[in-house]
Amino acid sequence: MNTTFLQACKGEPVQHTPIWIMRQAGRYLPEYHKVRSKGTFLELCKTPELAAEVSIQPVDILGVDAAILFSDILVPLEAMGLPLEFHEKHGPLFPEPVRDRAAVDRLIIPDPETDLKFVMDTIRILRRELADKVPLIGFSGAPFTLATYVIEGGSSKSYFQTKKMMYAAPELYRALLDKITECTILYLKAQAAAGAQALQIFDSWAGVLEPCDFAEFALPYVKRIVAALQGCGVPIIYFANNGATLLDLAKTSGADVLGIDWRIPLRDAVAKVGQGVSLQGNLDPCALLLPPDKLEKRVAGILAEGRAARGHIFNLGHGILPETPPEKAKLLVELVHRLSQK
Amino acid sequence: MNTTFLQACKGEPVQHTPIWIMRQAGRYLPEYHKVRSKGTFLELCKTPELAAEVSIQPVDILGVDAAILFSDILVPLEAMGLPLEFHEKHGPLFPEPVRDRAAVDRLIIPDPETDLKFVMDTIRILRRELADKVPLIGFSGAPFTLATYVIEGGSSKSYFQTKKMMYAAPELYRALLDKITECTILYLKAQAAAGAQALQIFDSWAGVLEPCDFAEFALPYVKRIVAALQGCGVPIIYFANNGATLLDLAKTSGADVLGIDWRIPLRDAVAKVGQGVSLQGNLDPCALLLPPDKLEKRVAGILAEGRAARGHIFNLGHGILPETPPEKAKLLVELVHRLSQK
Repeated sequence: MNTTFLQACKGEPVQHTPIWIMRQAGRYLPEYHKVRSKGTFLELCKTPELAAEVSIQPVDILGVDAAILFSDILVPLEAMGLPLEFHEKHGPLFPEPVRDRAAVDRLIIPDPETDLKFVMDTIRILRRELADKVPLIGFSGAPFTLATYVIEGGSSKSYFQTKKMMYAAPELYRALLDKITECTILYLKAQAAAGAQALQIFDSWAGVLEPCDFAEFALPYVKRIVAALQGCGVPIIYFANNGATLLDLAKTSGADVLGIDWRIPLRDAVAKVGQGVSLQGNLDPCALLLPPDKLEKRVAGILAEGRAARGHIFNLGHGILPETPPEKAKLLVELVHRLSQK
Repeated sequence: MNTTFLQACKGEPVQHTPIWIMRQAGRYLPEYHKVRSKGTFLELCKTPELAAEVSIQPVDILGVDAAILFSDILVPLEAMGLPLEFHEKHGPLFPEPVRDRAAVDRLIIPDPETDLKFVMDTIRILRRELADKVPLIGFSGAPFTLATYVIEGGSSKSYFQTKKMMYAAPELYRALLDKITECTILYLKAQAAAGAQALQIFDSWAGVLEPCDFAEFALPYVKRIVAALQGCGVPIIYFANNGATLLDLAKTSGADVLGIDWRIPLRDAVAKVGQGVSLQGNLDPCALLLPPDKLEKRVAGILAEGRAARGHIFNLGHGILPETPPEKAKLLVELVHRLSQK
């Protein structure tokens, strides 16, 4: 097996810098669209054979060093009892937002092997079909980010309702976060038991919090999850998106790897986090539009800065954009492998 | 006149920390809605008597230490020849985005005193009606931020088209930015000549750029504007939103004041920029939802950190949200004045 990804997570020496790409299974690939055309997005998530097929596509097409489960961070929230809709143009929608105690009390803690069996089945198929080519990453949303969706009722620009609950009804907020955290711990443990060889926690909207609020209302729940997963023996990646000013705090999460977005140079991230964790990132997804020579220069720069980290996994600083030409993603993987070859 | 705002811009001692609030004239005020109901948003911007009326409202209602012209950063782009529409739900729209050389060549450099006369007339009315109570701030968008709107055709999540032009057609990008910069210089000079006593440059989307791209594709145009305005004798405020990792660069803009969003603690911002500039910010707009005692604590914290800066103007870290209760905005102004009283 190509173990470069797992070695870099632990800060062990590697033959080349491993790379995978957030949202590597997805809308920029014609092969994905072919599978996706068979049904809705949620149907694809819930059909293990198809979800596994699109998870493997980027391994075969791009040559990345890790596969990641094809799913969505909102799937377990639906299993908690919240109706979930995906609209092509307006993104996810929870038509029954959670804004009072009764709504929090109604949330159930799903049993992953029954209520989210399709995810575990996808993982089992993937481990079999990947045949130890590359490791498989499982994932969940971080409790704060998940909470924003259920409190706002979908995506948001200002996160007004979420912060209103945090600020004006902190006990209600904590009761909701406790339940989401409990669900997430069971969900990620089940993923590891089903065969996931690493777990990433996506805190996509952490960057809307100032550091003192992040420390009080988001990080403690991540720490609780990481601590609960210690027995699973798989590396944990924590990605607080747009989190340049949160890194001092994020490094205390207990995660083995911190995801870094493109707003902070990797050298500055290394200076902030020290040698206690590995780093994952951080090319601007739009930089894939650079002419090849300029892309190579930028990739070489990130690799050079990454060498100062305990371990470095190359990735984009956010999900790959649907408009990206697949050949540019392929070129990126080739560049990272060639330029980092020992 | 209450000159605390102008003194703080220059780093001179003040009797109390001055405060104004981004978007202080606007949708959270019932008095604004009453005026706004008479026509469309753009009609309000273009009717000097009404634009002046809503600009003055927060001075009378909240007691802020500065007034700011009621307008929109996109108004001069319309004067450059680009049809502009505002939709209540989807925000601004440029139905004819600028993506090729011919479109850039078609842009005209408006004469502010004829093509944007309504802005200059608003400023003249305001100076008369403010009767030297508080200073008047004029403003424009920063060239990068303005360019995103005309390249994307409106708002954006990924700024894909903008970065595509930056990366794949840098000469076209620079030609567009040169024209927007030229227009902005004339526009801001005219505002100062009409009576604006300070000028703020809003770089609302600078935070989507990594530092090296900000240095190459955004900051040089801001520097050009600031340099061109030196003769006007009014302080310049530069606000690069979500710009924690851009502060090292932003402090070289030549501006007298840097706006700071809430993601970076003010003490860290002071440490980064030193004593060469004053700072403006940086309460999270959502923090106005805190109970009064907790709001007071947070305001006191920001004031304490601001004392280390050359000068400090209290503000929110972004525009006040339409959902904000006006009495909370009023309380904020009272708190800042009371807690900072010498």
